[in-house]
This record gives sequence, structure tokens and C-alpha cells, in this order.
Amino acid sequence: MENKFQKNDLREVDYSSSGNDFNTLYGLSSGVEEAILLTINKKNRQGLIKLVAPLHPADQADMIERLSVEKLNSFLNLLGKALDPEVLVYLDHNVQEKVIDFIGTKALARAIPELHSDDAIEILEELEEKDRNVVIKQLPKANRILVEEALSFPESSAGRLMQREFLAFPENWTVGQTIEHMRTQPQDEEENFYSIYIIDPGHRLLGVISLSKLLSAKTQIKLNDLMQINPRSVHVETDQEEVALLFQQYGLVNMPVIDLADRLLGVIIVDDIVDVINEEVEEDLQGLAGVSDFSIRSSFIETAKGRFSWLILNMFTAILASSVIGLFQEEIEKLVALAVLMPIVASMGGNAGTQTVTVAVRALATRQLDYSNLQKFVLKETWVGLINGIIFSFLSVLLAYLWFGDKQIAIIMGLAMIANLLFAGILGTLIPLTLEKFKIDPAISSSVFLTTATDVIGFFTFLGLSALVIL
Amino acid sequence: MENKFQKNDLREVDYSSSGNDFNTLYGLSSGVEEAILLTINKKNRQGLIKLVAPLHPADQADMIERLSVEKLNSFLNLLGKALDPEVLVYLDHNVQEKVIDFIGTKALARAIPELHSDDAIEILEELEEKDRNVVIKQLPKANRILVEEALSFPESSAGRLMQREFLAFPENWTVGQTIEHMRTQPQDEEENFYSIYIIDPGHRLLGVISLSKLLSAKTQIKLNDLMQINPRSVHVETDQEEVALLFQQYGLVNMPVIDLADRLLGVIIVDDIVDVINEEVEEDLQGLAGVSDFSIRSSFIETAKGRFSWLILNMFTAILASSVIGLFQEEIEKLVALAVLMPIVASMGGNAGTQTVTVAVRALATRQLDYSNLQKFVLKETWVGLINGIIFSFLSVLLAYLWFGDKQIAIIMGLAMIANLLFAGILGTLIPLTLEKFKIDPAISSSVFLTTATDVIGFFTFLGLSALVIL
Repeated sequence: MENKFQKNDLREVDYSSSGNDFNTLYGLSSGVEEAILLTINKKNRQGLIKLVAPLHPADQADMIERLSVEKLNSFLNLLGKALDPEVLVYLDHNVQEKVIDFIGTKALARAIPELHSDDAIEILEELEEKDRNVVIKQLPKANRILVEEALSFPESSAGRLMQREFLAFPENWTVGQTIEHMRTQPQDEEENFYSIYIIDPGHRLLGVISLSKLLSAKTQIKLNDLMQINPRSVHVETDQEEVALLFQQYGLVNMPVIDLADRLLGVIIVDDIVDVINEEVEEDLQGLAGVSDFSIRSSFIETAKGRFSWLILNMFTAILASSVIGLFQEEIEKLVALAVLMPIVASMGGNAGTQTVTVAVRALATRQLDYSNLQKFVLKETWVGLINGIIFSFLSVLLAYLWFGDKQIAIIMGLAMIANLLFAGILGTLIPLTLEKFKIDPAISSSVFLTTATDVIGFFTFLGLSALVIL
Repeated sequence: MENKFQKNDLREVDYSSSGNDFNTLYGLSSGVEEAILLTINKKNRQGLIKLVAPLHPADQADMIERLSVEKLNSFLNLLGKALDPEVLVYLDHNVQEKVIDFIGTKALARAIPELHSDDAIEILEELEEKDRNVVIKQLPKANRILVEEALSFPESSAGRLMQREFLAFPENWTVGQTIEHMRTQPQDEEENFYSIYIIDPGHRLLGVISLSKLLSAKTQIKLNDLMQINPRSVHVETDQEEVALLFQQYGLVNMPVIDLADRLLGVIIVDDIVDVINEEVEEDLQGLAGVSDFSIRSSFIETAKGRFSWLILNMFTAILASSVIGLFQEEIEKLVALAVLMPIVASMGGNAGTQTVTVAVRALATRQLDYSNLQKFVLKETWVGLINGIIFSFLSVLLAYLWFGDKQIAIIMGLAMIANLLFAGILGTLIPLTLEKFKIDPAISSSVFLTTATDVIGFFTFLGLSALVIL
């Protein structure tokens, strides 16, 4: 067994305290961090292992993420095979790549069988295809088959999220028999089971019993008298976003995954769903803010590139808006107050529209908004746009008059403000709803369309009205 | 017991199927919804109960949220005491208020003891103080004491999130004895337990055993030989955001809550943490998009009011930016191309800065960004701002020259673009970090400061340079 990653006995020790601050509850205190850095500098292998081993793998991963490239290499060199494979699971994608490059595919292939099947897949699917194939080839046969099957399911599907380890029993077993059987099985400390599943001889899912129910039942009761029939389950190809919504809707801790023939394939556990929720939220934020990556560990070049693609899009839309201004150069030359006031109209429209878009995107993502209340929502946002449009129209009239002492320009600004806030409300709902209808993610593209529209409408109504009335 | 809300037997029936779409997995299909509407119209009480009872309380809540005010009143009238108290927990705050107004405080006081303690608190803390006191007075004594204690903990603390129902045993009990004891206890279907806790005679928390570990252990083993000592726990006054971070960091399903004397007070379950994560994310989104409420059920007036306060703030900042333009009216009059190009400079700066702010806010919220990598992050964002500044500077020079055929104005626009994107990168990190330092939530206020700064800088550099060089 010398090839195996060393599992350490100190794992259960815990530095958590009862203080009130996250930093004191969090395993990796700054004291521990400094001590680890010291052992790295001193190349003290035993000292390092003694400090690292008691940390939760998630905390070890955080430690690794904080190391510079050189320190990381010394750290991995010193630790060698004492590196807990579980740590890989918790690493930020960018750092994970670096660590895997360093330890090599051979060590990775030794680490994979130590992991839960869902964690193994999460690491493998991030690898480049070439490396992935090399690693898969080196896996023990049983692992290889499971991994290849999991990778055959669509990306971001239930099949990729599920763990293959679960407890399933025939319906005619008794509670006593089941517990007896569990007692004879070798125990993996890390295994997380919260329910047992009842299956028929064809491996089809019949029911579920929570462990708390199993524990408090009389031993002679048969599982099929205790089980909840038709438990909530998802098909293996269901998208992870749908799965996450079901977990949230019903407050689930785990959920069985089945194939088209109702055969039980695996179980999804809530901790992976928490990650999915965070991913989905970041996807929404990405589109709204024009960011392509939330990892602060990604390299400077990658970050600049990701931002660039959004900025160039913004450049085009800004040019479009400015070309509207270009149509009215003559008017601006005659009445330069227009140039001073026009950004206020555009900015208010953009902000009001972003408010509506954000609420719509969030409501679509959480399935609060659907066919049943769509009309009501559009109507409400239109009213909100109109009422705020009227209020800000008054304020704008006042502002423009006090600033430039020109009644006409003041009234025109007021009219443009109403128009822009009203359109912001209407478009702020219609743009995301239309994108959703055409299966384009509204989170990603709504705000670009929206701010372009409010800029164009703001400039056009304000300058256009001025051209008509004043000049 | 005629005063009690009727618990229904049909609850376990489940409409879930193995289809691929959320709508088919989701309990409240449009068929069921239509059938329910029909029974409401026909005032068919038995029919309504038959349709509603098998639905999960979360689905019943969704159904209620979709009803108009009149339909809602008929629905509640028809259902009467057959309304499952659990439904209240899942309702959107705005609708919850309406339902509680309708059923009255007396019915609410009857419903509270039926709920998990954490759910009961969640409902009570949303009530106005007067109503809350009326309800609390009507509660049975045991419930009243628990509720009053829970409400004495700070808002959004672990003490408000925890459920008081948990299983705790002395350390010298054996596994067999523990399971035997559990079997003699009356079982509540809905109770969710995933671990048992080991306490000393002073009720101090000594250790934890997961149910799966308990089930597979030999019956004669003593709990103190099986338990994990020093389990992760939080103090009752710890903020829910910290608690959620710990759940995410360590992939927890439940966590014990203790007081300063280490006494076990309750348990927090992951389904409540999922809600907290969503709440915290919405708080971040609120500030970035300037929205004060994500509920699409809030009234038109409330919505307009919430939006107004953000828009008025934006109005002031827009005026500030425009007053910079006001300083250069003479220049614009002479060279109207400036008025056409200036919004492009400001817009690019605003967008680049929002990208950085969003990443910084998210990284602070998820604790990815801290003292250890702060400097690195600021430096990276500065570089990203500079490199994209250079690229867009070239593009701007080209654009301005092609559009207006003026070399000087083209070069000035290029310079203003670099300056604005560079400052956007620097301020996009420094603003949220400074706010965080002064304990102001960076999510709420960063983007206002940022866009004001990029507007002012954009207009000032572009128009100021033009004034210096050209005119």
C-alpha cells in the first residue's frame, strides 16, 4: 500500500472555539498559518505534517491558495505523499490546476479512488481532455468504469453531481436486519448517509427511509411498511439548476438520482447543492456586472481578457448612444446646456432600468416569475416607472430651471425624464422576459440591451424635443 | 383538540415524476393549479382540501402566492382549520402578512406550537411588535418560554436560526441503550435529525455522532468511545452570515449552537442556511443594482418607494458629474465633438469600475479576500485597468479620428480613456476595501461611489485636457 496517499489520524482534532468571530471559528487561524510558513522556510517536513494534518481539507486548501508559486512548490515537495487527496476538491480551479501540474497525473490517478465519486468527477471534468484520458487510464478498473459513466452524462447534470455511494435494501427486509447488515459493513469515516433507499430486484427505486426514522422504528418492522413511497427523485440528466431549485423548494438534504427505467443510480447531497447555488448566483452577477470570472486567483492576463470582451461590447453600445448625440450637434452648439443636462437623463434611465432588470432576472432564476404572474409584474413595473418618472420629472424641471434659468429646456428635460423612466420600467421587464422566451440567459445579456436602450431613448427624447421646440 | 390545525394524512403522496423539466418535478403542476382555482370558484370545500392536502407545504405556499386578494380570501375561508400551519413558513413575507391578517392572531397562536421552533421564530419576528405580543400571550407556557428566549437573541443570529428540538445523550450510554431509547420516543414525521449530541450532566456539549455512524456501530460501544470530540459549534449570538460561511467551508448538514458556558441550546440545519445564503446574495445584489426589495409580491407603492431612494441618490451623483461638464461649457460650444465623445469615456470607466467592484464585493462576502492577499488583488486590478486602458485608448484614438478627423481630440480621448480605466481599477478595489474597513457594507454603497468617481474623472480628464491643449 505504499502507493496510497497517507490518511492521517489527526484529522478529527479541531481548532474551533466558541468565540463570536468567523476568524476564531475558522480552522486556519493566522497563528497556524504563520507556523506553517515557518516550517516551509525551514524545510521541516515533520513539523509541516504535524501542523497541516489536523486541519480540515477545506482549510488546507485555503492555506495552499494563499501560497506564492515558489512557496507552493516547496510545500508540495515537503508534504509529498502526505498530501490529503481530499484537499484537491476544495481548491480554487486555478490553484487546483497548478497543484495537479506539480504532483503529476500518476499521483492524481492514485488520489482519485480515495475520493467520493462526485468529488472525483468534479476534479476530472476540469482537466484538459488529454490529461483526463491519461488519468482515467491509470485508474483501477472499478473506478474507471464509474468515472467514464459519470462523464458520459451532460455537463452540469444530476449525473455529474451525484455520489455513487449509497445504501439500498430490498423491501422485504426488516429494520433489524438492515441495521445488522450496516453494522457488518466496513465504515468509512467520511461517508455521509442521511437516508436508506428501498429498491426492487431490478434496482428500481421504491421508497426512502430517513436514518432518524430507521433508528426509532421497531426492529421487526419491514422496510416497505416504514418507507415513504414515490420519494422525490431526479433523472440523471436533469440540469443542476433544476436540482438546486428542488432542494430549495422542499428543504431537502439529499435526493436520489434515477435513470429512465427508474433505476437508482446515485444520491445528490445538499453540500454540493450549496456550491451549485453559489455558482448560479455568480452566473447571474456575471452578466449584470459584465464579469466573466469571479475567482480572484485567476491570472492577471486571464482577468484582463475576461473583462475586455465585456468592455468592447460596452464600447459599441456607448458609440451607438453617442451617435444619437452626434445627430444633434447643431443644437448642442447653439445651446450648450443640453450637453450638461443630457447625461443626467440617460443616467437616471439606466439606473431605473437596471433596478427592474435585476429584480426580473432574480425572479426568473428563482422561479418566482412565471406565466401566472408575468402580466401583473410587467404592469407593476410600468406603474413604478411612471410614478417615479413623474416625481423625477418635477425634480428635473426644478433643477434645469435653477441651473440655466430656461423654462423651455426645463420642461423638455422633465418630459424626457418621464419618458426614459417609463421606458426603463417597461423594457426592464420585457428584455429579460423576451430573452428567457428565446432560451437566452437573461442574466447574461439583459443589462447590455437595457442600458443601450435607456441611453438611446434618453438622448433622443431630450435632444430631439429640444430640436423640435427650442431651435 | 378541536382547536388544533388539522394535520392531514395525504401529505406523503407526491406528484413528482422522473421527467427532465423543473415543472414536471415540481409539485404544483398547472393542472393541479387550475383544478384548485375551479374548486375555489365553486366553493367546493371538500374538493379543495383533497387537492391541497397532498401538496408539500412549500407548493401550497406557492399556490397561495399566485392568488389574487379576493381568491386568497375565498381560499382561506374555504380551507378554514384545514390550512396546514407549515404553509405559513414558506410564504413570501408580503403574502404571509396578508394571510396572518386574515386568519387572525388567535389562529396563529394555535399554529405556532405545531411548527419547528426555528420556523415559529421566523414568522414571529416578522410580525409587528403589538401583534407579536398578542400572539405570544396566547401560546401554551412551554412554547412561550422558548419563543421569548429565542427572540431575546440578536436578529440574524444563530439563536434565531436554530431549532430547539435535538437529540442529546450522556456519554456513558451505549449505542444499544441510545437506540432503544429513541425507539420508545414518540416520532414526529417531520422531525429532521442527522446527528445525536453527547452532553455532560451540566448540559455542556462534549461530542457528536452522526446517525450513520450510530447505526453501523456495535450496540455495546459507549457513546464517548464513538463520538467526535470538540465538534464544530457556534455561539448562540454568532451572526448568520458567519454561520453560513462555516457550513459552506466544511460542507456541513447541521451544527450545534452553544452558549458561553458551552451548554447545548439547539441545532442549525442546512435548509435554513440555504435560505441565509440566498438572503445574503440578494443583499449584495441590492446594493450593486440599487434595489431595496427582491420580492415581486411587494405592493406597487412599496416598490416605487424602495426604488426612489436609490434613484434620488443617483440623481445627486449625476448632477455632480454634470456640474463637471458645466465647467467646460465654453469648450463644448467651440468644439461640439467633445459633447459627443465624453459619454463614451465616462461609460467605459463606469463599466470597468463596476466589474472590479463586483468581484471585490463578492470576494469580501465569501471571505476569499482578506489581509493576506489584499495587496496582490489591488495590484492585479491596477494592472488589469492599465492594460485594458491601453487597448481601449488605441481604439478610442481610432474612433475619434475616424469620426471627427481631428488628431488632437483623438489623442486626448485616448489619454482620458487610459486615465479613467486605470482609476476605475484602482478605485474599484479601494472603495469596497475602505468601506469594509470602516464597517460599512461594501455591497450596499460601493457602486454609487465608484460610478460617481469614474464619471467625474472621465469628464474632467477629457474636457480638462481639451481645454488645456486645443482651445
